[in-house]
Amino acid sequence: MALIDKLVVCGVGLIGGSFALALRKKKKVGHVVGIGRSQESLERAQALGVIDEIATDWASALDGAGFVLLAMPVGQIDAVMEAMAPHLRAPTIVTDAGSTKHDVMESIYRRLDAHLLRVIPAHPIAGNEKSGVQAANATLFQGKRTVVTPLPENDPAAVEQVRKAWEACGASVVEMPPQDHDRVFAAVSHLPHLLAFGLVHDLAGRANAELLFSHAASGFRDFTRIAASHPEMWRDICLANRQALLGELDQYLAELALIRSLLLSDNGPRLEQLFEEARQARTKWGVMQVDGQVALGDVKTL
Amino acid sequence: MALIDKLVVCGVGLIGGSFALALRKKKKVGHVVGIGRSQESLERAQALGVIDEIATDWASALDGAGFVLLAMPVGQIDAVMEAMAPHLRAPTIVTDAGSTKHDVMESIYRRLDAHLLRVIPAHPIAGNEKSGVQAANATLFQGKRTVVTPLPENDPAAVEQVRKAWEACGASVVEMPPQDHDRVFAAVSHLPHLLAFGLVHDLAGRANAELLFSHAASGFRDFTRIAASHPEMWRDICLANRQALLGELDQYLAELALIRSLLLSDNGPRLEQLFEEARQARTKWGVMQVDGQVALGDVKTL
Repeated sequence: MALIDKLVVCGVGLIGGSFALALRKKKKVGHVVGIGRSQESLERAQALGVIDEIATDWASALDGAGFVLLAMPVGQIDAVMEAMAPHLRAPTIVTDAGSTKHDVMESIYRRLDAHLLRVIPAHPIAGNEKSGVQAANATLFQGKRTVVTPLPENDPAAVEQVRKAWEACGASVVEMPPQDHDRVFAAVSHLPHLLAFGLVHDLAGRANAELLFSHAASGFRDFTRIAASHPEMWRDICLANRQALLGELDQYLAELALIRSLLLSDNGPRLEQLFEEARQARTKWGVMQVDGQVALGDVKTL
Repeated sequence: MALIDKLVVCGVGLIGGSFALALRKKKKVGHVVGIGRSQESLERAQALGVIDEIATDWASALDGAGFVLLAMPVGQIDAVMEAMAPHLRAPTIVTDAGSTKHDVMESIYRRLDAHLLRVIPAHPIAGNEKSGVQAANATLFQGKRTVVTPLPENDPAAVEQVRKAWEACGASVVEMPPQDHDRVFAAVSHLPHLLAFGLVHDLAGRANAELLFSHAASGFRDFTRIAASHPEMWRDICLANRQALLGELDQYLAELALIRSLLLSDNGPRLEQLFEEARQARTKWGVMQVDGQVALGDVKTL
C-alpha cells in the first residue's frame, strides 16, 4: 500500500523532483501533482515522468492531498504558505526542504497557525551544484541525512509520516531544534558556499582571469564545485540565515587574520602545526563519513 | 631504448614515486635509485618496486646518473642542492617538482651555478591530499599538466629531455617564467589550500566540533578535501611563496569584506548577481576542463 495517495510537490526542481522519483520507485506514492511558478519547468517534470499532473491553483492541488512538500528556494516559502493557507484541510501533512529553518518556522506560525499539528519543517542534506528537474534522480537521498526540526505543536504521528517518507527515499532522519540547525549549517554548509562563490568571483574579475583558470587543477575544482550552485537558492539561504552566517564569517575572518600573521612573521612551526591539526581533523572526519555510509548501507539491507 | 638509463629520485613520495612508476611502465627508464632523509620511506619504495636501489650518499647516487628528479618539499631544495653540487657531473640533467619556482631558481643560482646548462626547474600540476610512496601510481600525471620554467642559461636539448620525460608520464608540458608561475599558483592553488586548512582548523577548535562535523555533507567534503594535504609540504610552499600568497589573501579578504557588507545590508540583488557571476565562471571553466581532458585523450591514442 502506498504511504501517500496524493503527493503535492511545490517547486519541482532537483530536490522536489528527486523526492517524487524516489517515492515512485519504492511504490510509496500514488498520484503526484506538481505546482510552481515556472510552467516550463513543470511541463519538463511531467514529460520526464516525475509528476502526473500540473496544478494551476492551490484549491485543486490540495484537494484530497495526503502530503505536501515545499521544495522551492526559502525566499518563496512565506508567500507560498500564505497562498495555500485558505485551501489547506486536515489531514494533509505539509513539510518543506528548506536549507534554513528559523525563517520557515516563523512563516508557519504566521501563515499556517491553524495547521500546526501537521506542518513539520525539515531539511534533506543532499543536493549538489546542479539544479532543475532534469538533474533529479531517485537515488539523490540514498545514504544521506534529513534533519527534521519539529515544532512543539506537531502531532507525533505526522512527524512520523514525514520521517517515513524520507526514510523511503533512503535517507536517515535526525531531529534537532531549528535554531541549532541554522547555526550548524551556517558553519558547515552556508559559509563554505559563500567562500567558494567569493573565490571564483574574485578570480573571474581579474584582467588575467583566463590565464589563472587555465592553470587551475583538481584542488581548485573540488574547492570551487559548490560555486556553481543555484544563485537564487543561495541568496535566499544567506539572507534567511544571515545572523548566524555573519557570526561564522567573522570567526573565519579571525582565523584568516591569524594565518596572515603567521605568513607575515614567517612562522613555519606554527603554520605547520595549524595545517597538521586541520589535516588530522579532516582525515578523521573522512574516515567517519566512509564508516557512516557503510553502516547505513548495512541498515538498508535489513 | 630507455629515455633515461639511470634515474635518481630524491624524495620518493607521491610525486617522485609516481614519476618513477610512470616511466617504468612506459619502459623509459633503466635503473631507478632513491635517495632521501627517511630510510623507512625508501625501504617501502623499494619493497613496492618503485625504486631498484637505495643510495646513502650523493656521490654514488649521481655516479653515471642521466636524470635527477628532486621531489621533496621545497623547503629542503636548497640544502639538497648544496649537498649534491660537489658530485654533479655533465651530462646529468637535474629537474625538480617543487610547487614554487622563484625560490628553486634562487637555489639553483646559489648552489648549482656551475651546472646551469642542465638544471631545469619544473612543476607537475598533479598530486592530491594523499602523500607518501604508498599513494604513488603510474597514472598520476595522465592528462595533467607540467609547467617547466626554464632558465635563460638552460641548454634547449636538456629542456627537451625534461619535457619528454613528463610527456612520457602522460602530462602535457607548458613553459612560463618562474615569477608568472608563482603568481598564478598563489591564486589558483596556494590560496585555496590555505582557505581550506583555515576552515577545518577553525571548526575543529570549537567546543561543538563533533556536532558540526557530524552534519557536514558533500559540499564540505569537496571544499575541504585539500585540508588533508601534507602539512610540511604546504608550510614550505606558503613560506616560499608568501609574498604572492599574501597579495592573494589580501585581495580575497577584500572580496569577503564586500560579501560581508552585502549580507549586513540585506542586499539580495547584488548577492545573487555575485553568485551568478561566480556560477557562470565556474561552469564555463568546468566545461573547458572536460573538453581539455577529452582533447588530451585523443592525442594519447594517436
